[in-house]
Amino acid sequence: MARWAVLFDLGGVLFGPSLQHFLGSCERDSALPRNFLQKVMFDGGSDSPYAKAVRGQISLSQLFSEVEEGCRKHAAASGVPLPKTFSVARAFESMAAEGRINTPLLRAAGALRRNGFKTCVFTNNCIDDSAGRLFTAALMNVLQRHFDLVIESCRIGMRKPDPGIYSYALEALEAQPQEVIFLDDIGENLKPARQMGMATILVRDTETVLKELQELSGVQLLGQEEALPTACDPIDISHGYVPIRPGVQLHFVEMGHGPVVCLCHGFPESWLSWRYQIPALADAGFRVIALEMKGYGDSTAPPDIEEYSQEKICKDLAIFLDKLGIAQAVLIGHDWGGAVVWNMALFYPERVRAVASLNTPYRPADPSVDIVEKMRSLPTFDYQFYFQEPGVAEAELEKDIGRTLKALIRSIRQEDRLPSAPGFHGIQRRGGLLVGFPENCPASRILGGPALQYYIQQFAKSGFRGPLNWYRNMRPNWRWALLAKDRKILVPALMVTAGKDAVLRPSMSKGMEEWIPQLSRGHIEECGHWTQMERPAALNEILLEWLEKLPDGTSLPKISRL
Amino acid sequence: MARWAVLFDLGGVLFGPSLQHFLGSCERDSALPRNFLQKVMFDGGSDSPYAKAVRGQISLSQLFSEVEEGCRKHAAASGVPLPKTFSVARAFESMAAEGRINTPLLRAAGALRRNGFKTCVFTNNCIDDSAGRLFTAALMNVLQRHFDLVIESCRIGMRKPDPGIYSYALEALEAQPQEVIFLDDIGENLKPARQMGMATILVRDTETVLKELQELSGVQLLGQEEALPTACDPIDISHGYVPIRPGVQLHFVEMGHGPVVCLCHGFPESWLSWRYQIPALADAGFRVIALEMKGYGDSTAPPDIEEYSQEKICKDLAIFLDKLGIAQAVLIGHDWGGAVVWNMALFYPERVRAVASLNTPYRPADPSVDIVEKMRSLPTFDYQFYFQEPGVAEAELEKDIGRTLKALIRSIRQEDRLPSAPGFHGIQRRGGLLVGFPENCPASRILGGPALQYYIQQFAKSGFRGPLNWYRNMRPNWRWALLAKDRKILVPALMVTAGKDAVLRPSMSKGMEEWIPQLSRGHIEECGHWTQMERPAALNEILLEWLEKLPDGTSLPKISRL
Repeated sequence: MARWAVLFDLGGVLFGPSLQHFLGSCERDSALPRNFLQKVMFDGGSDSPYAKAVRGQISLSQLFSEVEEGCRKHAAASGVPLPKTFSVARAFESMAAEGRINTPLLRAAGALRRNGFKTCVFTNNCIDDSAGRLFTAALMNVLQRHFDLVIESCRIGMRKPDPGIYSYALEALEAQPQEVIFLDDIGENLKPARQMGMATILVRDTETVLKELQELSGVQLLGQEEALPTACDPIDISHGYVPIRPGVQLHFVEMGHGPVVCLCHGFPESWLSWRYQIPALADAGFRVIALEMKGYGDSTAPPDIEEYSQEKICKDLAIFLDKLGIAQAVLIGHDWGGAVVWNMALFYPERVRAVASLNTPYRPADPSVDIVEKMRSLPTFDYQFYFQEPGVAEAELEKDIGRTLKALIRSIRQEDRLPSAPGFHGIQRRGGLLVGFPENCPASRILGGPALQYYIQQFAKSGFRGPLNWYRNMRPNWRWALLAKDRKILVPALMVTAGKDAVLRPSMSKGMEEWIPQLSRGHIEECGHWTQMERPAALNEILLEWLEKLPDGTSLPKISRL
Repeated sequence: MARWAVLFDLGGVLFGPSLQHFLGSCERDSALPRNFLQKVMFDGGSDSPYAKAVRGQISLSQLFSEVEEGCRKHAAASGVPLPKTFSVARAFESMAAEGRINTPLLRAAGALRRNGFKTCVFTNNCIDDSAGRLFTAALMNVLQRHFDLVIESCRIGMRKPDPGIYSYALEALEAQPQEVIFLDDIGENLKPARQMGMATILVRDTETVLKELQELSGVQLLGQEEALPTACDPIDISHGYVPIRPGVQLHFVEMGHGPVVCLCHGFPESWLSWRYQIPALADAGFRVIALEMKGYGDSTAPPDIEEYSQEKICKDLAIFLDKLGIAQAVLIGHDWGGAVVWNMALFYPERVRAVASLNTPYRPADPSVDIVEKMRSLPTFDYQFYFQEPGVAEAELEKDIGRTLKALIRSIRQEDRLPSAPGFHGIQRRGGLLVGFPENCPASRILGGPALQYYIQQFAKSGFRGPLNWYRNMRPNWRWALLAKDRKILVPALMVTAGKDAVLRPSMSKGMEEWIPQLSRGHIEECGHWTQMERPAALNEILLEWLEKLPDGTSLPKISRL
């Protein structure tokens, strides 16, 4: 029988060191004999204060009271002096302050999940009504994003090693014991599971755990190349709809709690292009709002070209923030979304806490050369002229949406290359963007399976007319940009270049510092155009490093009233 | 021709004192001659630095540079010493720090709007890319919620007193000049408007302004009784949908940016019952999430009774927060929503930053008396027994949803009383909740017009079965609550009692302090059951005072990783 489910203990496994470690420190700090505190807390088996707490019979505050009372009694009985300032709460506070998520193990859980394993956090924990409860909530909130299931003893009135809790877990997983691997740092908790037939791993050092887990699962967990971050799933996330004006709405997904980060995708894409960034940014304490841009999917796609000028798109985005009641956000854009966020920084800087663009450089509009002439002189932008005549590219790209997306959205990696795929030159001459691509285009490694199906479903809603209209405002966009040609972008900014983007080449971002004094930079050399999906781990690292060093400026200023 | 639109200037009118005041202070602080700074900023008419800035030709940072350069030149030319530390930015910073929204005028704008007037902020302002730009964004974000329209000079390339901007405003309002009243503190800005035929008010002291505005509009603005706060509109707000599990979703509306406040309505109600609280809480810097509770409207309404036990409802609410990625929220509930928030504080205290209940008191479950027996002994709860038999109350309440809502949801005010309305006693004996109510029930003053229509539309979606099922879990709810009978609620808490609620009487909240040591209290004597709609201003004051004194604890703790 193959194994396809894994139970991970929390304290001492996914998050460590274990509680016992901090109880030991607490004993030393209070000059108590070794195991003094643990005895009070754990003695009495299933009637011990700790057992009652993890079964949810008493809350964490009640546990603190019982343990402190028990310690006083035990101290009196054993003649041990108990310091006046003794507090068991401090052990839990230290755990929050000094504990760490075990990232290698979290990544292994992610790899198992991507390989079809059901993953579950399986923990003895407490109903936390203490002053430190926000930490507990935040930790569990982060973990639940990365696992299929979370089983907390305090919610079900059973604890490890009560036999009932293992049966509960099996039922929740819909698994047989022989199909399950269980990791815990307490041997006693593993015993009943092993007796039932689960494979068990006693957790000591991470390296050994990963080896055993790799062996038991058959999934490569050691020496992985760049680990794929957790992706969010369209059917398991909050979807929002903002009315911009009668007949026009913008759709977005939302995750997290904290300063707002708005993600703006490019052509021809989806909010889902950010699926690897959304959970990572939420984990880091941001409220992520990933927009479906105007013209796409569940956002309205008005037919008129003028609806897609940068001026109009930016105005709509400002209204979007108004209606949501968000004064300011970090804006991150890619491709056309990059143009949007630079323009927001120029024309609506009040709304922009900071701005980041992937691939799309910023360059002030040049009044000396007509934009259309200038674009004509750049052969890689030939496709944009092919896009100009309404209906032409629509017909080609809508003919087989799946093929269109599979042909266009591919990584630069060897296994993703199509032998016959043409370059960006001569698209007008060839008479189409997809001419030369195979009829039966294989799915790319960066966009396949349910994610590709979601893209197709969204494009089926209103086709390519709206998305193509973004390109049909060359002169209006240029004229608008000319209004800001002498302006600098003073908000904190980040430019992420991708070494192998054939159109938006890193060299095009040269000299941006002249216009953006606070510019930070990131660069991913082995990356093509589809940065969010192609190198998500590398991108997340760049974005998080930049976000975390932004000057604080998130709490709303107090607006006084007479 | 009747007047039905009002233009309000911002600086010196809705928000004051005016910029000129702060420029004057800046001159005094820098020991500059009177009008030194103003001369540099405003001289040159439509070519002055300020004129360029408010037309959006240059940004606020560019204005600062130009003005500082101009001051240096003017100082040199006129032999005035300019302090090395001179900065015009400081005038704008003082304005942000010391300026105040003119609340009486904001209230007058609200009263005009409720009386059918179109209201508009009409301001000369700048594209703010300065370090203080968050204040500008937050101020405008607050104002736009309270007005139909905001016209900012810097977005349209025209400024007051350019004649074009008045024509622009008229077009935006779709109004004739004779239909418009315009308030400004600068006479020069009023002149072109008056010439076009608008009625103008030169703003000096608020009292005089209100008198003139009352006279011109015909709407009573002076000596109003308790002003109704701004309400949000279902068609103009962000709607979100969270998948809880396959086949079950929860619907909510969302407004604001900051610590999360979740609002949980009661029976038979809607998220819209909070329409007067949502903008006020967003104004105060909170992110408001107003839920449509399970069984109602666009939230799923599973048929099974067990789906509506408090245990299940609370579990769903925890999942709702998980899926949205919100670790912790302030929970505020009314009626059945009050029961939910108390149970969340007991069973999911990690998720609760603080808890507030309107009308519904907390009392620990009593193991010594069966809950059904206990409820039978309380005649005002007779209706709950009428609700027990599936199908019976559904048939009565669904027969004419409009009549049901109009009959049940009424204030205690004289003009809202129905002569023949029966009390809460003897409902079972009478054979119905609505027996004795007039067939053609007039709409109440607290729920009529489009709000009532929205309620009706939402109840038409899945009827009363789900809402009634909340009552059909007496024993399961009691048994669940018994698990926490010895627990105290340690999170910050607020109990708001309503003096004239016939069922949830203030006396029932006696002694809650024993179980909730951190309990704050609010009381509204002249208020019946429907607190949010009946006394919204009084309630908002209580809620905001409590929220603002909550200990800080909103920023997510950093969760470290190995």
